Amino acid sequence: MEWEQQAFLKDTHHKKNEEYFIEKYLKPLSKINESFPISNGDDSSLVNFNSLISVDSFVEGQHFPKDLDPFFIGYRSIAVAASDILAMGARPEGCLLSITINKPSDKWFKEFSNGVNEFLERHNMSLLGGDLTKGNLNIGVTVIGKTNDKILKRDGAEVNENIFISGTLGRGYLGRLEYRQVDTNLNHYLMPKIPIHDIDIIREVASSCIDVSDGFLIDLKRILTSSKVGADIFLNKNFCTNGKEDLICGDDYVLCFTSNLDEKDLTKMLPDSRFVGKIKKEQKLDVYDQNKNKLNFNKSGWDSFI
Amino acid sequence: MEWEQQAFLKDTHHKKNEEYFIEKYLKPLSKINESFPISNGDDSSLVNFNSLISVDSFVEGQHFPKDLDPFFIGYRSIAVAASDILAMGARPEGCLLSITINKPSDKWFKEFSNGVNEFLERHNMSLLGGDLTKGNLNIGVTVIGKTNDKILKRDGAEVNENIFISGTLGRGYLGRLEYRQVDTNLNHYLMPKIPIHDIDIIREVASSCIDVSDGFLIDLKRILTSSKVGADIFLNKNFCTNGKEDLICGDDYVLCFTSNLDEKDLTKMLPDSRFVGKIKKEQKLDVYDQNKNKLNFNKSGWDSFI
Repeated sequence: MEWEQQAFLKDTHHKKNEEYFIEKYLKPLSKINESFPISNGDDSSLVNFNSLISVDSFVEGQHFPKDLDPFFIGYRSIAVAASDILAMGARPEGCLLSITINKPSDKWFKEFSNGVNEFLERHNMSLLGGDLTKGNLNIGVTVIGKTNDKILKRDGAEVNENIFISGTLGRGYLGRLEYRQVDTNLNHYLMPKIPIHDIDIIREVASSCIDVSDGFLIDLKRILTSSKVGADIFLNKNFCTNGKEDLICGDDYVLCFTSNLDEKDLTKMLPDSRFVGKIKKEQKLDVYDQNKNKLNFNKSGWDSFI
Repeated sequence: MEWEQQAFLKDTHHKKNEEYFIEKYLKPLSKINESFPISNGDDSSLVNFNSLISVDSFVEGQHFPKDLDPFFIGYRSIAVAASDILAMGARPEGCLLSITINKPSDKWFKEFSNGVNEFLERHNMSLLGGDLTKGNLNIGVTVIGKTNDKILKRDGAEVNENIFISGTLGRGYLGRLEYRQVDTNLNHYLMPKIPIHDIDIIREVASSCIDVSDGFLIDLKRILTSSKVGADIFLNKNFCTNGKEDLICGDDYVLCFTSNLDEKDLTKMLPDSRFVGKIKKEQKLDVYDQNKNKLNFNKSGWDSFI
């Protein structure tokens, strides 16, 4: 059920109920426009275009620390979910929020909704609706993107193409270690910077794409599996913040894409992007350091259950 | 992130990880068709029509008992979420599942996915994607419906129109009390019967509509508030299973709608529907028993937080 209007017979108006928090903190973030033409407060939200849809859940203690400021829970959840729309070469346009929380308070909702609003405003997105329910903190985000003539999938990588990432790796991992420090606006874990300004160019030049969320190696493998190819990765400081561990740490929210353009031509158009390796025929993923030594990894990324 | 393909470098293949459960139990429920033209295993799902979207979360101990068979958790979650699409006069076409679970097992996933599949097959719906994460059991469902020229909103009720429900009240409440009993296929709590076969007619004859989920009175009030009108309800055994409490018990998943048709004409077209009252100008909701005595209620429905 979407955001619901306060019933006029206010038999529950003394208590802070679901509708109180929805009315006060969430509905104000919604706007009516051509893409989303009906106001919140009905059972469903209308989306006036062919769309890309993705869902993500964020669990306290699992996806974010228990003491994280609700502002960043809000900002980060929408950013991470929106990254899946960018990964298809599209722009995120709107989202729905499904909030499960045990003890909602004005303080929590004020900070959380401010964080959500900050992300939505910066990225010109709308909040379309959602629901609120009782239970252990779990933020469910459904993001909707507008499809273009071309969408980027994982299965388009071709042998001899170059592999690029839209920004350096390891910034999210570093930000997670330092999440209690002051300069939050520069912290890529608290406020992930998704490459929305580059997406129209990436869509044109890329043959396949994925967002790096669970770890560069595991996410690249998903492209390789879908495309039935392999890859050589050439690790260097030009695209790593910390070191070798950046290839498996996750929380990057950069795009990994393949293209037949060479490094020079591509980085002219996309100065934040970095060359990281090449697609090969043999269905294997190998990583080399700057001395051409092959590197080994115990794992390739993050998994909730192992 | 949508269902992901098993990476070909199976560095985690000894363990039952996210991808194991997704590959084995959830991806088989997905089909490619004209409406949903790309296969699962990319970052987002493509929806090839203007859509209605709704989200709902289902929390163990809150929306369903802890000992409920996972088959019914699956069946019921999709049914309840799909009800919000019907409430707009549209047909649910597809859904995404965001599953949070602490200890996934083959047994749990087999039963859960069978329940999901049973609902999807019966209602000709597709599973488009979703995510799986670790935490206390929480089933997030995003449902997508196809929009028609006409959609039903809450704000269309007019003075002197009749109020109808698409089926009798109280069956979900009764089913909740008896959920351990044997004949599960007739239990409206375990396997809610949503009025999908009537929706094309209801869309044509109704001026406003909502689904009864939190309780008949609280949900009707939402129509009244949006439409700036009031209502008189005439309680009788023709539409109640148990008694007066059926007006506030919730879990009904019938549609409540207003129409300018009279009872006889409407029930000719919709034999399961019942006349329950009339819209009036005065912005008040009054309930009368069969002796024309006004009834009082302490509450009007269900709220997670009060």
